[in-house]
Amino acid sequence: MTPDEFRRRGHEVVEWVASYMERVGGLPIAAAVRPGEIRAKLPAAAPEAPEPFESLLADLDEVVLPGITHWQAPGWFGYFPANVSPPSILAELVSAGLGAQGMIWSSSPALTEIEAHVLDWLVDLLGLPEHFKTAVGPGGGVIQMSASDSTHLVHVVARERAVQAGAPLERLVAYGSSQAHSSVERGARIAGLAHVRKLAVDGAFALRPEALREAVEHDRAAGLHPTIVTSAIGTTGTGAVDPIAAVAEIAQEHGLWHHVDAAWAGSAMLCEEHRDKQAGAERADSYTFNPHKWLFTNFDCNVLWIADRAPLIGTLSILPPYLQNAATQSGEVIDYRDWHVPLGRRFRALKLWWVLRSYGAEGLRGLLREHVALAQELGRRVDAHPRLERVAPVSFALVCFCHAGGNEATDGLADAINAEPTLYVTPSTVGDTRYVRVAVGQTRTTPEDVERLWRVIDAAA
Amino acid sequence: MTPDEFRRRGHEVVEWVASYMERVGGLPIAAAVRPGEIRAKLPAAAPEAPEPFESLLADLDEVVLPGITHWQAPGWFGYFPANVSPPSILAELVSAGLGAQGMIWSSSPALTEIEAHVLDWLVDLLGLPEHFKTAVGPGGGVIQMSASDSTHLVHVVARERAVQAGAPLERLVAYGSSQAHSSVERGARIAGLAHVRKLAVDGAFALRPEALREAVEHDRAAGLHPTIVTSAIGTTGTGAVDPIAAVAEIAQEHGLWHHVDAAWAGSAMLCEEHRDKQAGAERADSYTFNPHKWLFTNFDCNVLWIADRAPLIGTLSILPPYLQNAATQSGEVIDYRDWHVPLGRRFRALKLWWVLRSYGAEGLRGLLREHVALAQELGRRVDAHPRLERVAPVSFALVCFCHAGGNEATDGLADAINAEPTLYVTPSTVGDTRYVRVAVGQTRTTPEDVERLWRVIDAAA
Repeated sequence: MTPDEFRRRGHEVVEWVASYMERVGGLPIAAAVRPGEIRAKLPAAAPEAPEPFESLLADLDEVVLPGITHWQAPGWFGYFPANVSPPSILAELVSAGLGAQGMIWSSSPALTEIEAHVLDWLVDLLGLPEHFKTAVGPGGGVIQMSASDSTHLVHVVARERAVQAGAPLERLVAYGSSQAHSSVERGARIAGLAHVRKLAVDGAFALRPEALREAVEHDRAAGLHPTIVTSAIGTTGTGAVDPIAAVAEIAQEHGLWHHVDAAWAGSAMLCEEHRDKQAGAERADSYTFNPHKWLFTNFDCNVLWIADRAPLIGTLSILPPYLQNAATQSGEVIDYRDWHVPLGRRFRALKLWWVLRSYGAEGLRGLLREHVALAQELGRRVDAHPRLERVAPVSFALVCFCHAGGNEATDGLADAINAEPTLYVTPSTVGDTRYVRVAVGQTRTTPEDVERLWRVIDAAA
Repeated sequence: MTPDEFRRRGHEVVEWVASYMERVGGLPIAAAVRPGEIRAKLPAAAPEAPEPFESLLADLDEVVLPGITHWQAPGWFGYFPANVSPPSILAELVSAGLGAQGMIWSSSPALTEIEAHVLDWLVDLLGLPEHFKTAVGPGGGVIQMSASDSTHLVHVVARERAVQAGAPLERLVAYGSSQAHSSVERGARIAGLAHVRKLAVDGAFALRPEALREAVEHDRAAGLHPTIVTSAIGTTGTGAVDPIAAVAEIAQEHGLWHHVDAAWAGSAMLCEEHRDKQAGAERADSYTFNPHKWLFTNFDCNVLWIADRAPLIGTLSILPPYLQNAATQSGEVIDYRDWHVPLGRRFRALKLWWVLRSYGAEGLRGLLREHVALAQELGRRVDAHPRLERVAPVSFALVCFCHAGGNEATDGLADAINAEPTLYVTPSTVGDTRYVRVAVGQTRTTPEDVERLWRVIDAAA
């Protein structure tokens, strides 16, 4: 395909994506295919001869779309959002076209410097401490693929710190609440930590600091080595906010690495009125949040900040001869390959830069505040409804509630919502209680969409 | 930005990328910026108010391009290629526009099924064993971000197998040749394996199987637990090919996990004439290659095949309530979140599908054979030149040579090449010998580009 053919096909693809944006609100959100149905449409072997581009485009509608669950529909209230935006989508196109590698500074300096700089911008936007900035130090930020990667990585770094302090691998312990994201247990297990404690939570599903203290003291007494604790700002289940400052206190006292997982709710910190929820995070060893969840930036874009980059780089740096270069030797540059497991890295900062500039901080705050207001209003209606009960406080833009008639009635409620093709929720369970999770945050969700949702809830309840 | 504005801006961005494709061959490949120069062009804080899209586009030329090292230039002979192609770039645009998540089958079935199917196509295209196919089993393929991720992951799975067999963590040993990619030592270290052995190589820089056997027996005798060995098809330094079958034999005999790293050269296996290099891989426990290196597919697209997916899933699977769903419970579907460290995953299979269909297998083989032929011809010229010496056999499309006058003369040679703005090589060191690495494989590299390169080499030598 020549540049001119790319031009022509590119315009067709832009048209297809624009038309998808226009259509997505009217499509049934949940893919209705059976297991194997998409595969069955594909030929048994790769083609030997080239196929015309028309066939590829046609298959987007015929093969792909029936198997897509439409995360970008305005009636999307499932999981957490993975909201995208036009400038972010176009930045992905530019990044793909440049095809540059940012594994080390010298392999494409703009990738590293724009990433480092934009993440420093975000430190201010989120009200995080100055030492999280690469330009200030000793910490710094880096883009990773997912919060699971970041959480895994800090477990590795904390493990190395413990091992260097003489602790045997078999005695290391990781902590999180029983409501912590699965990536905490998974990250600890993948990092080879032998023990994972899931701590008790309070009535709002937040970690009980005394449970942490007791567990740490108990483990110490048993000859184990308490290594790392993860606290959450906004758990996946119910949006619970752990007491960050109290955890920071205990972590400091007992020499634990303190990791803050704000994967979803971190975006809300752009709005000052939420920052009380992260008080204490300025003392954390690491902090992660996902612009690819609720900040209009395409997956993948997870940010990890670390309070001190030295132990991270110390754990991950190996310099083979083919990567040696004058800039690295000078010590004046960041080589992000030393900041995560993968070596190669594409230009992911571009979309974040374009999103921040296209919306402006005020524009982003406006959208986030609208989502939160919609969730608060929905929460008030749930509270006022005789047959609905909230199972947790409304948290940022997440509302969790059940039917007073019990689990079966709650599942019936979720089914009724999902029977409406252009609405979508993912019900869940906490303790023995089934509940409906409504996560407001899709880019194009409007008050009318929440109103539509409410009408179905009200009618079904 | 409305869909109509996206349409308009999208056409502008397509035009920018098309024009970049036309211009890139004439741009100085290596970014000429000093450390900090790009950052200094950026404002100290994120903008509060939205900026017009024109400013974003203008900054591509003013801020970004000066800091890009142009991996997509036809005169690119550095590192390994990270070649891209128009259909791959456009697939990235579609994937970004869909903004769908493939963490589990039910969160967007097309993402999982097209990935599983296309990777099964590739099993045939590369001449790998049937049991690597998800449709056959017990193995299967999955797309990861980088070969470093795949290599790290199999070290974790092998570690768990050893621990379950009762081996203490402190006694696990990983093996690779002294020429293995840094991701082997790094992956082992991140996975918490206490011992990494870098084995002796032969005159062609390939692992000596007797060195592996001796090391394993020695470690066993010392009470250690030999756990995993990585063999390479095409090392990064010189493209060396380890004796896969001999390693497979020793691995089987001693119960080691055998991982095959064909990150770069795996693409060449589309051409039957190279398959003797991977004889024995049909007995490997895992095999990784990067379509994002030499198969015209944008980063990130690394493929990991595993001979038996059960231990992988057994190590990584944790099923929290919010991810439970009927399809997963049925056991009829693949949930790729259990196949790697991250949870979220975007639609990366689309670009691979589009590349395979746009070029057709024959088209891809034609391009790969042209790259190999260009490298072979360059190798012959090096051999015939009185002041040049090859430091390793020409391997696939990689030529490694030095100046007979010693390291200083060789560095002078590399400098002379890189002084030509539209040519680029990354020199390296093996043992005490500096050498020039010429990796042929950029999408638009032509015989004329290699001829240009040769004229500079010949003149400088």
